Order: sequence, then structure tokens, then C-alpha cells
Amino acid sequence: MTQSRVTIRDVAAAAGVSITTVSHVLTNASGKRIAAETRSRVHRAADELGYAANPVARTLRTRRSQSVGLVGDEIATTPFAGKIILGAQDVVRTHDAVLLVTNTAYDVELEQREIRALLDRRVDGVLYAAMYHRVVAVPPELRGEPVVVLNARTEDPTVSWVVPDEYTGGWDAADVLVRAGHRVLGMINDEDDIPASHLREAGFRARCAAAAVPDADVTVMFGAPNTDGAFEPAIRMLSQGERPTGVFAFNDRMAMSVYRAAAMLGLRIPTDLSVVGFDNLEIITEGLYPGLTSLTLPHYEMGAWAAEQLYAQIDAPAGAPVPVRTAKLRCPVVHRASVTSPPR
Amino acid sequence: MTQSRVTIRDVAAAAGVSITTVSHVLTNASGKRIAAETRSRVHRAADELGYAANPVARTLRTRRSQSVGLVGDEIATTPFAGKIILGAQDVVRTHDAVLLVTNTAYDVELEQREIRALLDRRVDGVLYAAMYHRVVAVPPELRGEPVVVLNARTEDPTVSWVVPDEYTGGWDAADVLVRAGHRVLGMINDEDDIPASHLREAGFRARCAAAAVPDADVTVMFGAPNTDGAFEPAIRMLSQGERPTGVFAFNDRMAMSVYRAAAMLGLRIPTDLSVVGFDNLEIITEGLYPGLTSLTLPHYEMGAWAAEQLYAQIDAPAGAPVPVRTAKLRCPVVHRASVTSPPR
Repeated sequence: MTQSRVTIRDVAAAAGVSITTVSHVLTNASGKRIAAETRSRVHRAADELGYAANPVARTLRTRRSQSVGLVGDEIATTPFAGKIILGAQDVVRTHDAVLLVTNTAYDVELEQREIRALLDRRVDGVLYAAMYHRVVAVPPELRGEPVVVLNARTEDPTVSWVVPDEYTGGWDAADVLVRAGHRVLGMINDEDDIPASHLREAGFRARCAAAAVPDADVTVMFGAPNTDGAFEPAIRMLSQGERPTGVFAFNDRMAMSVYRAAAMLGLRIPTDLSVVGFDNLEIITEGLYPGLTSLTLPHYEMGAWAAEQLYAQIDAPAGAPVPVRTAKLRCPVVHRASVTSPPR
Repeated sequence: MTQSRVTIRDVAAAAGVSITTVSHVLTNASGKRIAAETRSRVHRAADELGYAANPVARTLRTRRSQSVGLVGDEIATTPFAGKIILGAQDVVRTHDAVLLVTNTAYDVELEQREIRALLDRRVDGVLYAAMYHRVVAVPPELRGEPVVVLNARTEDPTVSWVVPDEYTGGWDAADVLVRAGHRVLGMINDEDDIPASHLREAGFRARCAAAAVPDADVTVMFGAPNTDGAFEPAIRMLSQGERPTGVFAFNDRMAMSVYRAAAMLGLRIPTDLSVVGFDNLEIITEGLYPGLTSLTLPHYEMGAWAAEQLYAQIDAPAGAPVPVRTAKLRCPVVHRASVTSPPR
């Protein structure tokens, strides 16, 4: 008898239990109280018959729960990444399912309880989502479940993830400025050691170099990523002898304090100084005057991409390998009125 | 035999079914397939014995699911009311339970599916929450379940709700200005017909009247509640002969365009013009220069209050009346640098 011929029915018959019980045991289904003795009988039967308990055996579940969980750190409670939920939800709806969102508030114990609650409720899969792009470890409770990491990366090669393309974002921010003619450029970067700060700066510098702007004419300073954080570095940067005529701020909140520093120094935007932000937080970009050119984080698109990948796992036939995919999604530039050619 | 002596055991015995089945039938538990014949036998037995199927009979459920649902319109996906979730969650945690959040996106059909999904998962109760203060109808699916309406009012007298105290908010905004000495005042109100616009204006006018400011010296103009909406009305208001020296903007986004109008007219804040906002959206209030004095919507406190009331219902003993409470929570003033005494 070849391995491929062994079915779950054979295992059930050999172990003297139902097919459902075999499925629960081999998929390690949570929320099922199955006696340890039964579990070991099922595993023994499966081993003896050469039945491969594979990670997608979970699709043997007799019916879908028509729900997907989104475990987020603080996506639902802060103003920055809510569209992740909208993007995921729009895809989940096309599968006639609902999205159940939890908020861990970075509390590991709470996160475990929430994951347990979702698995107990037999969600069909879990989106594990971060408010800002970082490297995460997938909680062990989610092993063997359909899972996609959203707005974060993971080092686990068996897990799919999606993040914004930060490097290209930095490149495109510089591109807007060099195409407008700027040859002395500045970046006010987030002082935090996170992927976005490193990658946006690398992309920004690379685009400047590609435009043959000398390194000496590219100034990078650092501040906290809030509405006050860029003020002091911007004052320093813009008081230099040969000051930058185009500045890229790590995010829109920092761009807000670049506007303030410029006003303080008597520099008009965009005539004397061009500014590019990041996040396209409309409250800021459309509230500032002149409107701020900024890059959009693809929150909606990442949410939708992740939900689609999750369903690719959920829908994979039993026995098929789980498809693993990763993606960096582009951050489109939204042009407003804060960039023009440099003063002569 | 008095009615109070009849127990669920008696009904179960008379109907020839289990206590659990009686409980499911009488609480109209969702997700339970019970034959129509069984249902009517249970109802008949309950009627004959005079057993009162009351709205809190649901607490007869043998065990708690240790979860609470939050059905929100777009709280989790927009930047304005996320702290509602945080406040609710902090209370839910003290009950060793988790909060499952759904987002209806104002779609009635989706909302029904989400409520059904939550009830199928046997949540212990539901918070029915709105992104902004309005009047809502509690969906019929939630009848008989523990439910609290959050950041909205309902006309159903059996349902508890909590909203911000908008009238006192308007009163307090005027209070900040009249105490600083302003005698000619303006409000730029939201043009939408919602409780907040009517009540804030009424409170604002009442406080002006209490300070003996003549009606003729209180100007109210209207605009859309966004970062651009107050610009044109503010230009008109501040170009008047005897212009207001203190202006209350319906929200911080509108205050942002009051700042812009003031700059355009050469009026300095706060020396020439004092400004008070509403929402205390920190991205704006701390990003504007000078920092914007604003009122905080008590989102966190409303979330916590609603979750506490929900648990009062969940924990009510079987047969006890469901406690109904309503609350208007104060919107505290956060003083920053945008208000001073009027120019002489």
C-alpha cells in the first residue's frame, strides 16, 4: 500500500474513532477536548499506516466558520493604519465571511488569550498585523493554522508576509525633488532603529546619487517621529550656509514641524523650500497650507493582499503544500502644492 | 405553586427535554438547530407552569464564553474614535474576557452577518458603537441580548447608552473664551444636522448669554467638518467690522483652517485671535503652532463605561430586571497656547 492511498478513513477505522476526531487530532484543532489516550491512538494509527499529517490537513474540517481573525497590535485604536482593516475586510466579504478584529496593545499575555479565543471560535485563518513595519515572530499558537503576517516581516520561511516598499518610497521622495531641479537636499529621518528609517534613507540617498548629487549636498538629520520631532533638526538644517532647498520628512507629522521651522525662519513653502512627507495622513496633508506632497502607505492594498493570500491557504486542497509568498507594495506619491523648482 | 418557585428544571421535566434545550429555546439562542416541535413543546410547558421567560434568562447559559463583541461602523478604520475600543477592552480584560471588534462600514447587510457571527460564537454581550454621536436603532438581532449603545443614543427605553455631553462641551468652549475676557465671539459650526452641532452651539450661546454678551456679538457661521471647511466662513467672519476676538471651531480640523484664514488676514494667534477646537486630535492640536486649546471627546471613558454597563447586564441574576442606564460624559478642556486675552 503506497502512502498516497492511505486516507483519513483508514486512520479512523484503525484507531476506532470518527473521521472528525482524526481530523481534530492531526490538525491539532484548538478548543477540542480530546482525551490524551485517544490522541495517541490516532497518532499511532496514522504512523503505522504511513498517513502523512501535513500542515494543510486542517482543510479537512467539515465546514468553514466563514470568519477570519485579525490580530493587531494597535491598528484599530490609533489613527495610522485603520485602512489595513478595510482592505482585509473587503476581500473577506467576497468570501461571504466576516472579519473579527482584536487589539493586543502589545501585551503578550492578552495576545495569547485573543488568539486562543479566535481559534476556539474556529476562525478559518488569522491575519497577524502590525501598526508599523517591523520584524515579528509569529506566536506559536498560530503554527499550523492559515496565517499571513501583515505590515511586518518575519524570519520564518514558511510564513507569507507583506510590507510597504520603504526603499522605493525613499527613492520616489527624492525623485520628486530632483526632478523639480533640487541639487541640495535634506532628509529629516526618524531616529528610531526600524526598517522604515533605514530603508527610506537608503532609497533617498540612492536616488540622489543616481542624479549625480554629491554626497556632501545630501544632509540627513534625525528626530522623534512626532509633530514636534523635526522642528529643532529642521531649524539646524535650514540655517546652514548652503541650506537644502528640498526636504523629505520621514512622516507627515514631522513635515508639519518642518513647515513651522520654515515659517519661523521666514522661508515660504514651496517658493523657498520644497517639502515631501510620508504617510499621506489626510488630516495633515490637506490641512497644511500649502497642501503637502506625500507618499501613501499602501495600508488598504496590504490588507487586501494579505486576505487574498490567507484564502489561498484556506482553499488549498488537503495535502497540497501551503503557498508561501512575500510582497513589498509600492507607496504611491500624492502630489499637492509643497514642491516646486528651487529658488535661483 | 407561586411563579417564583417554578424552575427551569420543572420546565425541562414537563417538556421531556434537557435543561440546556429549555435554556436555548427560551433565550432564543442563535446558532442552535432545535426542531420547531421541540420549541413549541418547551414554550407550552413554560406557559402551563407559569415559568417566566425573561430577558435575562440568557444568564442560564451554563458557561460564559469570556468574550464580548463590539459592532462598530468605522471606529476601527478611521482616525477619530479608536480609543473607544481601548476603553472597552480595558474593562473587558478585568473580566478575563476578550473583545472581538467588527466593522460594518455602514452596510446593513454586512452588519447583520457580523452580529450573527458574534452571536453564533456565543459572545456574552455586544457593544453597539458609532464613530460619531448620533441616534441609532438597535438591530433586531440584538433583542434580548446584553447590549449597550456606545457613542450614540437610541429611542428604545430598554437599552443603555452613553454619549459625550455636547451641550456642556459648547458651554465650556465659550467659558474658556469669556473668562479670558472676550466679549465678541464667533463659532464656526458643522453644517451637518447632527446632535453635536445643535448641542454645542446651544451650550456656546448659553454661556455667552450667561456672561451678558449681547446676542448681536455672537456670530455663528457654518462649514463642512473637514480641514478646509472653516476657511471661507472664517475669512468672512474675521473680515467683519467688529470681528470676533475669540472663535470656537466645531472640531480641530476646522480649527486648522481658522489658523490658515487668520494667517492669510495677518492675524496672529493668540495675540489677535484666540481659537478653541474640539476633539483634541493630538496630530492637529500639538502639530499646530501655537498649540490648539481643545476639548477631548471622552472616547476612552465612554468605552469603559459601556463595557461596565454591559457586564452589569451579563452579571444580573436570572429573573432580575436588566439595569438600564444612560450617561452623558463630560468633554474636558485641554489648555494649550491658542487662547489669551483679547487685543485692546
